Amino acid sequence: MEYPGALTLVNGIESMRLDHLAERLGGTVIGDGSVVVSGIAPLADAGPGDLSLYVDPRYRHALRSTKAGALVTREPADEARVPQIVHPHPFVALAALVDLFHPVSPAKAGVDPRASVSPSARIAPDATVHAFACIGEKASVGARSVLHSGVFLGEGAFVGEDCVLWPHVVLRERVRLGNRVTIHAGAVLGADGFGFARKDGKFVKIRHVGIVLVEDDVEIGANATIDRGTLGRTLIRRGVKIDNLVHIAHNVEIGEDSAMAAQVGISGSTVIGKRVLMGGQVGLVDHLTVGNDAVLIAQSGVIGNVPEGATLSGYPARDHREVLKAAAEVRGLDRLKARVLKLEEEVRELREKTHLR
Amino acid sequence: MEYPGALTLVNGIESMRLDHLAERLGGTVIGDGSVVVSGIAPLADAGPGDLSLYVDPRYRHALRSTKAGALVTREPADEARVPQIVHPHPFVALAALVDLFHPVSPAKAGVDPRASVSPSARIAPDATVHAFACIGEKASVGARSVLHSGVFLGEGAFVGEDCVLWPHVVLRERVRLGNRVTIHAGAVLGADGFGFARKDGKFVKIRHVGIVLVEDDVEIGANATIDRGTLGRTLIRRGVKIDNLVHIAHNVEIGEDSAMAAQVGISGSTVIGKRVLMGGQVGLVDHLTVGNDAVLIAQSGVIGNVPEGATLSGYPARDHREVLKAAAEVRGLDRLKARVLKLEEEVRELREKTHLR
Amino acid sequence: MEYPGALTLVNGIESMRLDHLAERLGGTVIGDGSVVVSGIAPLADAGPGDLSLYVDPRYRHALRSTKAGALVTREPADEARVPQIVHPHPFVALAALVDLFHPVSPAKAGVDPRASVSPSARIAPDATVHAFACIGEKASVGARSVLHSGVFLGEGAFVGEDCVLWPHVVLRERVRLGNRVTIHAGAVLGADGFGFARKDGKFVKIRHVGIVLVEDDVEIGANATIDRGTLGRTLIRRGVKIDNLVHIAHNVEIGEDSAMAAQVGISGSTVIGKRVLMGGQVGLVDHLTVGNDAVLIAQSGVIGNVPEGATLSGYPARDHREVLKAAAEVRGLDRLKARVLKLEEEVRELREKTHLR
Repeated sequence: MEYPGALTLVNGIESMRLDHLAERLGGTVIGDGSVVVSGIAPLADAGPGDLSLYVDPRYRHALRSTKAGALVTREPADEARVPQIVHPHPFVALAALVDLFHPVSPAKAGVDPRASVSPSARIAPDATVHAFACIGEKASVGARSVLHSGVFLGEGAFVGEDCVLWPHVVLRERVRLGNRVTIHAGAVLGADGFGFARKDGKFVKIRHVGIVLVEDDVEIGANATIDRGTLGRTLIRRGVKIDNLVHIAHNVEIGEDSAMAAQVGISGSTVIGKRVLMGGQVGLVDHLTVGNDAVLIAQSGVIGNVPEGATLSGYPARDHREVLKAAAEVRGLDRLKARVLKLEEEVRELREKTHLR
Repeated sequence: MEYPGALTLVNGIESMRLDHLAERLGGTVIGDGSVVVSGIAPLADAGPGDLSLYVDPRYRHALRSTKAGALVTREPADEARVPQIVHPHPFVALAALVDLFHPVSPAKAGVDPRASVSPSARIAPDATVHAFACIGEKASVGARSVLHSGVFLGEGAFVGEDCVLWPHVVLRERVRLGNRVTIHAGAVLGADGFGFARKDGKFVKIRHVGIVLVEDDVEIGANATIDRGTLGRTLIRRGVKIDNLVHIAHNVEIGEDSAMAAQVGISGSTVIGKRVLMGGQVGLVDHLTVGNDAVLIAQSGVIGNVPEGATLSGYPARDHREVLKAAAEVRGLDRLKARVLKLEEEVRELREKTHLR
Repeated sequence: MEYPGALTLVNGIESMRLDHLAERLGGTVIGDGSVVVSGIAPLADAGPGDLSLYVDPRYRHALRSTKAGALVTREPADEARVPQIVHPHPFVALAALVDLFHPVSPAKAGVDPRASVSPSARIAPDATVHAFACIGEKASVGARSVLHSGVFLGEGAFVGEDCVLWPHVVLRERVRLGNRVTIHAGAVLGADGFGFARKDGKFVKIRHVGIVLVEDDVEIGANATIDRGTLGRTLIRRGVKIDNLVHIAHNVEIGEDSAMAAQVGISGSTVIGKRVLMGGQVGLVDHLTVGNDAVLIAQSGVIGNVPEGATLSGYPARDHREVLKAAAEVRGLDRLKARVLKLEEEVRELREKTHLR
């Protein structure tokens, strides 16, 4: 039986007509909709049975040489001689295509006998706990969540439903995750914040007894670190995306749908608004506020509050256009110096002529 | 029995009179010292039974709305309508309060049967080794030290007394820790330094056979990395505090009571003095010396030796006040250009008037 | 039996005559070649039985006080009063000396019964798999490779011959390593790239189904992260050296014999040429190309393509000499302002004199 949008098996591989795919994705076909595709691949690697994505004009040169059987594009790509699905959100289409052609096999539920699970922990019957995971007292793992090998849940840590914790993820005591949270390998949530009292030139440790609270639909990158609050909580709100090796200090709060690229560092108690975007290696000092929809360009060093919607770069970070303008002016400094030198000569000549010197 | 400074149980919660607390902490009470508190919490979250800390004037607005039963402050906070403990070192007081209201339960001594312990390793009888820790040949763990799940000690690694190694900490062969060292989850001590000989455009590996030596009272952050010496040792002296994701290269030496915030990177053989403070994401090139009490502001890029007591910022890092002055001058460049333009016009006019042109 | 270049045991320690060593290393002896050495040590720590390396003139002061019995140098060091091996590549000599005086004991082959190994995995009989390693379905470990405690190989991951994976290294599904690859503790290869579609201000996850492909003779530092391709592969070519805490995003390609110091971050789909050198904390935005033999100085922020052989620094990164020149000009801005001020006064005077004002 075939119906629009269904995958069929062709030679054992899942395949689909382009017009059916377009209908399923919400796009429009240009060219022959009866073409059958059975995979997705980059422009350079794709074969006649593959769909490929073309969005970025920097890759226009690849359109002529690609062997892809069909394309997904935002706007019709005239250079390409293959059928296309034109889609207003081609990356959303890509996300759906990956799910279609590379479906996730469901994890086998159950607790591996080589895991260490406290008798007081609660593990949902359809959750998966792999070998060498270590689940502390009164910790909790929700329905369909998967804890890979070596995951550590401290006492009272809480994992919601449909979460995936990749190998060696550490949730220290009382850290809480919502639902559909993905944490990549090696990330550490709930280590002590870097808070010390200083007395007579020596540091006195302030133990951190707060928590980390992660809301629904958050993704956290490999080897990232999110410290627990000194007393209260470090808070990662719904939909936030955090890349690898990002550091988030004690008592920070990140607003909904914000995203931080790799190696960003956010200092203690700083509060980030909603839909804020940060490029890689951005740093923010402590106790700042960053307004909604702000954009911090890669490597910015932010030392003051950031207004809503601002785009900042450089160190100390300020308005990106001003930074570019200042950089251009600095590059023009030798010309300015030459003009001043010429003026000095002309003025000397004038002074001689007018007997001022 | 009650005596000044004792905790009593009120409804099952440990509680204490404010005047007794003040005596214990070494502070002075302002207002009603008979108030009883049973916890500590941030200004925004505190209830009538909680103490809260107020130091930073940026949070003055929170004084009016807080429901805290009492405050710890550095100077009397007149806006607050609750009793206060005024303390010369409020963060030192906070450290003591955390220890008082959130005492650490002692770890249960012993070696989990699911740990892998070499028969030649020496584990103090009152040390704790959790499941899936891996203790190599001739490694040593001192009294009352706690090795969490997945900790790895290579051959001959040495852990002193009262240390805490959180999950997945790796001490490679012969790395040595003093007493009261805390290492947060995922930190790696003793990986090979990044040292290669280059010949005909190719790299020749130099195996690193030195060690890492960590003295007493050091704290090392989550996922930090400290490489072993090429031949000699990488040395972290007494009292040093290292934040998450910091990188310390082979043969570096860090002086007593210095502190590095998150994501700092220190290149090979650089020597840091005592009580040096570094903000986040600071980088130093190799073979430098940094004098005692220097301050390196966040994101500084240090490419030369740093004198004692200097405060540096920017790239290449130089005196912070000069950096701020230069930044102001760059911002004023368009005004300077306008002045030069005006001069050019005036000089042209003068030259015409005096028949020079 | 003794022959040139052989190690002999002196008091149980391996020892060697200097002239025999020089012959073996390909260097020339200056001074008494009959001296016997039995170890290598830094200038400051070496004793009479030790060789030491002297290359960097910043350590000339240490030549007078060193107790080393002999030196390896690039050029004769007249200040030193000990025999020397002069070698055109002293660090190549050092690499050989470490191998000679600190030979690696061969790992004991076999799979520890406490490892978790899928029945469908293929482990070479002379490979070593330590306790708590976790080898997924159809994963493969080649001859003489060593997987330390807690290493994770996802489904279908492939490790070539003579590789060393230190504790807690994670290779996610289908990641492939060539031969002689060393990965330091905690590194994560094959986590999902940071790729999300954005729709109505919210992120839609794009699962990453590509791979990471690592060729022969690569070394990867502790807690580094290399993400898998979105669809295709992230590619690390032969001989590349990657330091600790480096981040390499999805679909990046690194050319042969390139090296990246600690905390470098490379964004998605950027292509790096051969023999490129990057200092610590360098960052590159996505979709760039960097030409062969380029040098990116520490902390550079690269936002455009880099030509072959260029040396860049600063943010936005540009020609290093221009950056230094611009920095000098910015430092001279107060002098330029003073010159403009003087001109303004002189012109005012001239205008008065000539009745223009």
